[in-house]
Amino acid sequence: MFRFTVTHRDSYTHARLGRIETNHGTVATPAFMPVATQGTVKATTPHELQELGTEIILANAYHLYLRPGVELIEQAGGLHRFMGWDGPILTDSGGYQIFSLKDLCRIHEEGVHFRSHLDGSAHFLTPETVVQTQKRLGVDIAMVLDECVSAPSSYSEAARANALTTRWAERARTATTRDDQAFFAIVQGGVFPDLREQSARELTTLDFPGYAVGGLSVGEDPVVTHEVARHTIQFLPASRPRYLMGVGLPEQLVRYVSLGFDLFDCVLPTRNARNGTLFTWRGKLNIRRAEYATDQRPIEENCECYACRHFSRAYLRHLAVAREILSARLNTLHNLYFYQQLMRSMREALADGRFGDFARPFLAVNETEKEEERV
Amino acid sequence: MFRFTVTHRDSYTHARLGRIETNHGTVATPAFMPVATQGTVKATTPHELQELGTEIILANAYHLYLRPGVELIEQAGGLHRFMGWDGPILTDSGGYQIFSLKDLCRIHEEGVHFRSHLDGSAHFLTPETVVQTQKRLGVDIAMVLDECVSAPSSYSEAARANALTTRWAERARTATTRDDQAFFAIVQGGVFPDLREQSARELTTLDFPGYAVGGLSVGEDPVVTHEVARHTIQFLPASRPRYLMGVGLPEQLVRYVSLGFDLFDCVLPTRNARNGTLFTWRGKLNIRRAEYATDQRPIEENCECYACRHFSRAYLRHLAVAREILSARLNTLHNLYFYQQLMRSMREALADGRFGDFARPFLAVNETEKEEERV
Repeated sequence: MFRFTVTHRDSYTHARLGRIETNHGTVATPAFMPVATQGTVKATTPHELQELGTEIILANAYHLYLRPGVELIEQAGGLHRFMGWDGPILTDSGGYQIFSLKDLCRIHEEGVHFRSHLDGSAHFLTPETVVQTQKRLGVDIAMVLDECVSAPSSYSEAARANALTTRWAERARTATTRDDQAFFAIVQGGVFPDLREQSARELTTLDFPGYAVGGLSVGEDPVVTHEVARHTIQFLPASRPRYLMGVGLPEQLVRYVSLGFDLFDCVLPTRNARNGTLFTWRGKLNIRRAEYATDQRPIEENCECYACRHFSRAYLRHLAVAREILSARLNTLHNLYFYQQLMRSMREALADGRFGDFARPFLAVNETEKEEERV
Repeated sequence: MFRFTVTHRDSYTHARLGRIETNHGTVATPAFMPVATQGTVKATTPHELQELGTEIILANAYHLYLRPGVELIEQAGGLHRFMGWDGPILTDSGGYQIFSLKDLCRIHEEGVHFRSHLDGSAHFLTPETVVQTQKRLGVDIAMVLDECVSAPSSYSEAARANALTTRWAERARTATTRDDQAFFAIVQGGVFPDLREQSARELTTLDFPGYAVGGLSVGEDPVVTHEVARHTIQFLPASRPRYLMGVGLPEQLVRYVSLGFDLFDCVLPTRNARNGTLFTWRGKLNIRRAEYATDQRPIEENCECYACRHFSRAYLRHLAVAREILSARLNTLHNLYFYQQLMRSMREALADGRFGDFARPFLAVNETEKEEERV
């Protein structure tokens, strides 16, 4: 079972409210997916994720294929049972990971030869084996194998990769078999508007249950990211979920929701947490700074997360400076709670017809703060 | 408030059941204290500790004095509030830590000069400042400053340190002021029975609310540890809690409870957890071993800990091999749960008059297993 329904459209932007129904539960969209690369959202338990309001997580088929291996997860009854998360799971195919290790991979029409970043062992992935892997993992949403070109890339290089991505998507579409699992295609095309349009048009003719925009936020200027995403989304069918991969900062989520994207994933809330960077409604703070040493306030007043309900900035700073595991835990809980609250707030604003009233002041505060941080 | 009551004595061993009452709650003894060196039991939250059945934890005044500093914790309202644990806390004075850094410390009659292991800064601690530090931390049970000689040490060296420890204990006894805080003296004397007896006799004349046996489990043969502990305890008043510092393995806890010790602390359950070594009622296992890669069973059947209720050995092995933070978390929860269950089982057996029936088969299994591990 896989069904996507748009329940409300914003009057002033392209933002929309919806839901994705899967065999493992329903996801209210727009939704943010915490990243569980290796089958665990770093430093959290499935129980905590649920309490934070998480409805879907992202894992990485490439990483799980290499370690612990697909057969082992299949034996355990699939990824849901293996990792103890019974809500919806989306797996990225790993195209991005493979192609980011340029020296370790060679691309052919048939598929991609690469060496494991863990032990150097040789592997060969094809669009069909990637479908098969995710089928065996038993996830609810799976991604096709795409070729992700690095930024900057030449037009001809992006065009070549684009054509291959389409041919691979055709093969993947043919190979899908489970009707409880939805494969999403990934639009590529680098920073070139006509290639993005071409990729979107070719892929949509294959009638996938959902579409992702990939190959963005890979080093290009955020202004370019925004332009390309805005250009691309118009060629994706409004009846299907639209997923912007690897994005992003809170203010970016608000911007891209307003463009009409429904799904997001990003390592920022979890990775930043481990470095001591915490998100708040008034911008970011780095808890390691000396000014927090005697600060008895929580990270954010009125935040209902476990960290804010029980601990002071002074204690959290101590844990961060002392490199305690509890630091990563509490910071991660806070950041993921913040991200889920942000998505909830956007959904509520959409339902109430006041998305613009929510988005404008939020962007004013956060985009200003971001500038200040750059100084 | 500090009160110790022995409620039951075993008929066949020296084991006893009791309770310690403090302003922050009551501790059923014999009790095991998880170690929160830097103001956090590594990888756990206070809420989890409570759920595991923890009634008292140990923190380290020396570490907290160096970082984040006593003044900062005092400003936060004391250590309980700072770290969000409202149950009883015992702090070690840090004598053991200071003297284990031989090159960085110089001992005088007045106190000890040492350099911080963190930043090399110079510090001077006296019996009086150590009392003062723990008073400001606001903990329920505090330890006097002692001189802990390294093993092996000569008789003359141990005798000199012993005499100094007694003089320091006298000064500490005079310096104590809070009646909601109990200072325990620490018996030293190395591996020399007459020095242990002398230390115990001298310290007990000072009438402390509790007594610890220190300077053991510092590298000497476990058989010697046991002999010295057994010899020493007979000189400590039965009306006071008796605390064996830094011990130990599960089978050692059973042995030392049977000698009449009431309190224990040890980093083993938490440190071993982070290395993948898990305690079970049938001995230890290292979850990183290849044999667990496809093992769908929990760490231990019928264990009620969060890790065993939700995850397989196969998943825990994957987390350990992938060096995920969740590995440290789940392993720590299991090991601490095991330790608290062990203490609970001993207390229940004592209450039911069947301590021997509990201890004999437990030691048979665990002391055999230990031998096998050495092979």
